[in-house]
Amino acid sequence: MLESKSRQVQEYVGSLRFDRRLYRQDIAGSIAHAHMLGRQGIISATDAEAIVGGLSSIAGEIAAGSFVFKPEDEDIHMAIEGRLFELIGDTAGRLHTGRSRNDQVALDLRLYLKDEIPAMREEIRALQASLVGLAERNADVVIAGYTHLQQAQPVLFAHHMLAYFEMFSRDMARLDDCLVRVDVMPLGSGALAGVTYPIDRESVAQELGFSKLSANSMDAVSDRDFVVEFNSFAAILMMHISRLCEELVMWSSTEFGFISIGEGFTTGSSIMPQKRNPDLAELARGKVGRVYGDLMAILTTMKGLPLSYNRDLQEDKVHVFDTMDAVRHTLPIGSAMLDSITVHGDRTRAAIKDYVLATDLADYLVYKGMPFRTAHSVAARISMDAGVQGRGLLDFTVAELRNYSDLFDEDVKNVTIESSLDARDVHGGTAPVRVRAALKAARSQLEEGS
Amino acid sequence: MLESKSRQVQEYVGSLRFDRRLYRQDIAGSIAHAHMLGRQGIISATDAEAIVGGLSSIAGEIAAGSFVFKPEDEDIHMAIEGRLFELIGDTAGRLHTGRSRNDQVALDLRLYLKDEIPAMREEIRALQASLVGLAERNADVVIAGYTHLQQAQPVLFAHHMLAYFEMFSRDMARLDDCLVRVDVMPLGSGALAGVTYPIDRESVAQELGFSKLSANSMDAVSDRDFVVEFNSFAAILMMHISRLCEELVMWSSTEFGFISIGEGFTTGSSIMPQKRNPDLAELARGKVGRVYGDLMAILTTMKGLPLSYNRDLQEDKVHVFDTMDAVRHTLPIGSAMLDSITVHGDRTRAAIKDYVLATDLADYLVYKGMPFRTAHSVAARISMDAGVQGRGLLDFTVAELRNYSDLFDEDVKNVTIESSLDARDVHGGTAPVRVRAALKAARSQLEEGS
Amino acid sequence: MLESKSRQVQEYVGSLRFDRRLYRQDIAGSIAHAHMLGRQGIISATDAEAIVGGLSSIAGEIAAGSFVFKPEDEDIHMAIEGRLFELIGDTAGRLHTGRSRNDQVALDLRLYLKDEIPAMREEIRALQASLVGLAERNADVVIAGYTHLQQAQPVLFAHHMLAYFEMFSRDMARLDDCLVRVDVMPLGSGALAGVTYPIDRESVAQELGFSKLSANSMDAVSDRDFVVEFNSFAAILMMHISRLCEELVMWSSTEFGFISIGEGFTTGSSIMPQKRNPDLAELARGKVGRVYGDLMAILTTMKGLPLSYNRDLQEDKVHVFDTMDAVRHTLPIGSAMLDSITVHGDRTRAAIKDYVLATDLADYLVYKGMPFRTAHSVAARISMDAGVQGRGLLDFTVAELRNYSDLFDEDVKNVTIESSLDARDVHGGTAPVRVRAALKAARSQLEEGS
Amino acid sequence: MLESKSRQVQEYVGSLRFDRRLYRQDIAGSIAHAHMLGRQGIISATDAEAIVGGLSSIAGEIAAGSFVFKPEDEDIHMAIEGRLFELIGDTAGRLHTGRSRNDQVALDLRLYLKDEIPAMREEIRALQASLVGLAERNADVVIAGYTHLQQAQPVLFAHHMLAYFEMFSRDMARLDDCLVRVDVMPLGSGALAGVTYPIDRESVAQELGFSKLSANSMDAVSDRDFVVEFNSFAAILMMHISRLCEELVMWSSTEFGFISIGEGFTTGSSIMPQKRNPDLAELARGKVGRVYGDLMAILTTMKGLPLSYNRDLQEDKVHVFDTMDAVRHTLPIGSAMLDSITVHGDRTRAAIKDYVLATDLADYLVYKGMPFRTAHSVAARISMDAGVQGRGLLDFTVAELRNYSDLFDEDVKNVTIESSLDARDVHGGTAPVRVRAALKAARSQLEEGS
Repeated sequence: MLESKSRQVQEYVGSLRFDRRLYRQDIAGSIAHAHMLGRQGIISATDAEAIVGGLSSIAGEIAAGSFVFKPEDEDIHMAIEGRLFELIGDTAGRLHTGRSRNDQVALDLRLYLKDEIPAMREEIRALQASLVGLAERNADVVIAGYTHLQQAQPVLFAHHMLAYFEMFSRDMARLDDCLVRVDVMPLGSGALAGVTYPIDRESVAQELGFSKLSANSMDAVSDRDFVVEFNSFAAILMMHISRLCEELVMWSSTEFGFISIGEGFTTGSSIMPQKRNPDLAELARGKVGRVYGDLMAILTTMKGLPLSYNRDLQEDKVHVFDTMDAVRHTLPIGSAMLDSITVHGDRTRAAIKDYVLATDLADYLVYKGMPFRTAHSVAARISMDAGVQGRGLLDFTVAELRNYSDLFDEDVKNVTIESSLDARDVHGGTAPVRVRAALKAARSQLEEGS
Repeated sequence: MLESKSRQVQEYVGSLRFDRRLYRQDIAGSIAHAHMLGRQGIISATDAEAIVGGLSSIAGEIAAGSFVFKPEDEDIHMAIEGRLFELIGDTAGRLHTGRSRNDQVALDLRLYLKDEIPAMREEIRALQASLVGLAERNADVVIAGYTHLQQAQPVLFAHHMLAYFEMFSRDMARLDDCLVRVDVMPLGSGALAGVTYPIDRESVAQELGFSKLSANSMDAVSDRDFVVEFNSFAAILMMHISRLCEELVMWSSTEFGFISIGEGFTTGSSIMPQKRNPDLAELARGKVGRVYGDLMAILTTMKGLPLSYNRDLQEDKVHVFDTMDAVRHTLPIGSAMLDSITVHGDRTRAAIKDYVLATDLADYLVYKGMPFRTAHSVAARISMDAGVQGRGLLDFTVAELRNYSDLFDEDVKNVTIESSLDARDVHGGTAPVRVRAALKAARSQLEEGS
Repeated sequence: MLESKSRQVQEYVGSLRFDRRLYRQDIAGSIAHAHMLGRQGIISATDAEAIVGGLSSIAGEIAAGSFVFKPEDEDIHMAIEGRLFELIGDTAGRLHTGRSRNDQVALDLRLYLKDEIPAMREEIRALQASLVGLAERNADVVIAGYTHLQQAQPVLFAHHMLAYFEMFSRDMARLDDCLVRVDVMPLGSGALAGVTYPIDRESVAQELGFSKLSANSMDAVSDRDFVVEFNSFAAILMMHISRLCEELVMWSSTEFGFISIGEGFTTGSSIMPQKRNPDLAELARGKVGRVYGDLMAILTTMKGLPLSYNRDLQEDKVHVFDTMDAVRHTLPIGSAMLDSITVHGDRTRAAIKDYVLATDLADYLVYKGMPFRTAHSVAARISMDAGVQGRGLLDFTVAELRNYSDLFDEDVKNVTIESSLDARDVHGGTAPVRVRAALKAARSQLEEGS
Repeated sequence: MLESKSRQVQEYVGSLRFDRRLYRQDIAGSIAHAHMLGRQGIISATDAEAIVGGLSSIAGEIAAGSFVFKPEDEDIHMAIEGRLFELIGDTAGRLHTGRSRNDQVALDLRLYLKDEIPAMREEIRALQASLVGLAERNADVVIAGYTHLQQAQPVLFAHHMLAYFEMFSRDMARLDDCLVRVDVMPLGSGALAGVTYPIDRESVAQELGFSKLSANSMDAVSDRDFVVEFNSFAAILMMHISRLCEELVMWSSTEFGFISIGEGFTTGSSIMPQKRNPDLAELARGKVGRVYGDLMAILTTMKGLPLSYNRDLQEDKVHVFDTMDAVRHTLPIGSAMLDSITVHGDRTRAAIKDYVLATDLADYLVYKGMPFRTAHSVAARISMDAGVQGRGLLDFTVAELRNYSDLFDEDVKNVTIESSLDARDVHGGTAPVRVRAALKAARSQLEEGS
């Protein structure tokens, strides 16, 4: 407890400016604790009731904006406790029986994540739904598939979108795994060694919706793994978003010209209305820095800390909140931005250079009986000549092709971008039949909410 | 394929110096692929057999150290393929049917992690066993529990060790979760769009022991989430080790003097044999930097990369291998170092300042009927006076204590470090009965191998 | 310019919540630009005057807190421009002649750092002054010098403090170097290509106190090196502070007991007044995470961005401000905390184990004529025996020492902690005469302000 | 000194596998030290001569590859010292008089950087020369200048290249600043407290080419600021390279088609010779991850370390060497790659959408007397209509333009991409006359070597 400190010191140690957003969790935790103290006879039923009543009023005051935070309130816990004394007098002092600030702050942050993660989960799902929607609306659009940013093989635009769907599915799985480790109730660990009162930890856990109790009090008050793990999850998620946005920005350039992002999600120049800057996509891409930074920050702070609680840990919340905001703000923006996109299927199709069919030409010869390697080198020679002559592979007549091999026949004209797509008929491949199935599977995954 | 490049360029693009350690996985993957090609009739049974035979020979050559790597071999895949041509001639060319370098490298790295993770798991378990052993050997040792590196409440040394046990249990859970996402078979994704041959991905997965197939070819060749996730897991693990080693270093100082690390794990000064430097603990602590750095490296490299495969990804392995080595080398050293530790229970006990019993004194009064807050302030006054007079709380006579409150009686002499420990009789608390149970639970967890 | 966007999008793109702290710099930059436009006849003198007048009023309004920020103001630049239109009508529109948002935001951030860096410089100097003061007040205090946290050789406490003085001197030099690269005037770069009006960049630079003009417009609007460099400087500074605070925390433990931090800078437990938690030192140590994180964040955001301006850059300020706050808040706290410290010279002295004199004993023999290596092994044997017998080196009688070598004489009793200190009489060594000189040099460095 | 350790422990503590590259510096430092010991009469002239002779032989052996490293050699220092004993017998033992491993390793790393930095400097300069060369060879090429990856204003390609020239100039300045802090001689600091012999630090510094002596022995053995600073410099440099390579990759795509990178610096598909993958540019871009990671690693390792030397520091070299290799390998590759580039000036020019001239149209009207704002809105309307009609601004006839404003005259036809370029005639602008001057200035800067 700080007494008679200078204002500057108070500000330095204070965390109210950021931890006030934990008020709901702090009050819920205190109410559950008070209920238990009453049930166990550690405090009287009357006192428990008074405490719970007071806390409920305070929750109302803060929600209503009528709560007055005082300069001397170091953190949200003190602010609420101070007000409780004002409201119900000295009985307020009983609330801290069998509890310490150390297990209380651990509880609040865990409760906070338990509250936020399901909401974030919904937003990831909404982003996935937007990807699927965009894919479905452009189910027939063909686009070059790139490696090294060079055209490699034609793919369905929907296939490309579903690659991102997979990434976000993994993110959701990681978030679920993280939640399992968030979902541990630390109350009862006291300052570090456990408490001396006959508390009932299980019932508190139950009231607060936790599945598990922390198993070691010293660990419980100093563990911030769940923060690092959440920030790691978020770093990967934002990495995916940075990749998606990179493509959206590139595809929006006049050189690519593959998509138009809706006006609500670009900013223009008043004098050049044609110039639609994909600001939202850029901002989302840029925010990955913030989220990586938060991860590195909490990892650094935890490095080399002896047990158990150290005040260094106070900063944990800053990085959780900053990352939470970055992600929670980005997801719905991303979702709406995807919904606003028009894909210019004519442009994506026209942009495909037909040298990407060289492999299919080789495969044609293989199916006609030519050994694989020979077929490859024949296709390479045609491809090379096409390049030199500035022609497309599809421009060669059958007669011309026969100069390279007798096996070419009229049906070589069946080798097209469409046939190339159709041929990738393997689980995970870009054949339309596979992509349709994948879209359907994605839809049911979204509906099942898994 | 690089042709006629300068030596400098070849070295820059080459990865053989680090990816040669994937040779086992590369060959296993190729054998499974060849088997399947044969089964599916995509290549003849004879060819499949020849390929498998050649690959097996190569595996033997590399294992025996007789394999000759050539300067022009860009990577392990080329080195092996080149040798296969030497051994079995042009048939070697059929191995690449229905496969691309892009899905091949993704496969190899996944196989590598599938091989290494179980071994690492065992090493984490061994470290946990060493913690439990150290705790068991010092089951009666009492040590001050610290918050802010200030003595706060007495705890059992075993309780302190079990806090680390919990951390490593979480690490193992994270590693298991990571393995689920590693355990996905990418072969069949081709360069990016899937392949045109009637391959059987399921059977390849089965032969290689994978549980799942990748669901989108573009994602499969550009996904490195499993690398980032592995590096995140390792960063948290090494953070835990940095905390443990920080304590070992501090406890080894003459000022603390709580432990002696075995001579095999310290280095001395020839002229000052009393000076035993905890070099191993320091090195282990220092290596956390490396592992955090690897995580940041792969996250950075992935930022903003468009789909699908880009050559930037080549560096992924560097960070996996570096982190793997740092962790795999540290775990057994840590384990053996813990086994070598002598805890000086007399010193840990003698170091405890008895002001840490002030809370217990207050609890004594509460149980005698005094309201909590009043009891608190009485204990605080005694504590304050003790400090001023330079005495311990336990030095006060009952008569002296009665000056503070009539409720003090002869049985106040029952308030001791032992009673303080006993009183924390709550799940996760430091009461000896609880710690014994926790040790037992830890032992069975170790035996179950979960 | 954003029009008719959804509230959510507006909030996402908006930066007013953090960039409003640039208002002084934004207005100063605009005033200088308007002056120049007037001087060059690009706008009329009357218009220039009106603009400057309006801007001055706005500066007053914001300073006075009477300025009303509107929800539609995307950033501080728009907020000020909007208000200028209200105040002086359409003439406000002329301010943007020959200027773009892109060079304007670059200017503002550079001006901000130019304003803050000298103040930060003073605070670093104050911290150094506190280190010197603490050293001077404890000029005779002897403390063990540690390597590997093991006592190695006795040093003066002042010598230890001056090690930190050196670190902060380097920080200051790095800050000065950084300032040189901050001190570059970007205005005139326009959106990216330069401007079409006959502007006079030199006079603007002069009015704003810049030493140099940016040399390439595309670079000028996309360069954030100065941000990364500032954040790098701050990361090293905070690393130093984390090391200092680590020592303060350790020295405050009862086991070390070397120092007491003033009450204003610790927090206590009401019930254990003896427990003084070094919260401020811990918080300062923990904040290094934040500053490392900010560095990693801006580095990540910049990775792989094509030229020239991209909206990703908007986030640059977040990391500069966050780091600025962390450092600016920490420095004066650190300074005052050092001023509050009492060093317990009796404890630091008593804690020294006299095996740390073994080297001095060897040196004694060398000076008596014994070859270095032999002397070393004699001293090692004495040291070893002392350890086994649980005695100090200084406890051996001359007679006993003669059992090891005839060269020992009565004057061996001159080998003491003091003689050990005196013997390190080399530039940079801990001999009192050297430390006194170093303290004096530090004092004059502080006074010269260099 | 490690004795009778297990092989595993020896490998863990050993650093020979990476620090052997310091052998030149280690020997040079020892020779300078031995010279000084002889000059000061601390050891005899004969001994000094023998030591220097032995060390020179060892240098020769290592350079020739005939030196045999032994398994028990923990590090390069021990390997050399051990060999010195073999070569000159017990006299070797005198080399360590007045020196400790702690100041020795600090010296070696500083010497290493002093050796490497000038070479790196030359390579940065060579990269700049390649940029200038590429700019000069394409002096007339016009390209769209981008903001948000949207075309904004036409610029000279040379102007774009010179933006990178500026970045690398700043890198060089940062490297020079770093060198000042590397250039400090730590020898004489002993283990931590200074040494007891009458050494002459100045003469050692002079022989080794150092400008400054370290001022505090405790700082000198634990300071790794110069490593962090070097890694920070390298992080910014590689960030610049990641930006440049991002553009090269994008410009190499068929959609942009602005450049062709020479065949020696791309890899192709045998079957699609048209597909030239910019692997080198991708690898260089990817390596930024590694260098950011190394920076984070050393920052992490240094966090919270108490004074003075701790074994954690051993890892410092790993990150310096890894970053050194990444940068030193990348710079010449980058340089040669730039030299190999063909810029397709016809394509860059043809790609420019003429809406980028809207600003110039407005400026035209302003020069004709129309107020700025009105001019702006007229240009915006024309621009908008052009967009709707799918026409370029330059396609409008004078008659058509007069529908928007009477001020349009025949000379509006003078508004062209060229006039737009010419108009940016400001220091740092893209006007050809300015760019020519900037190229000339760059050339002389390169020649002066500053």
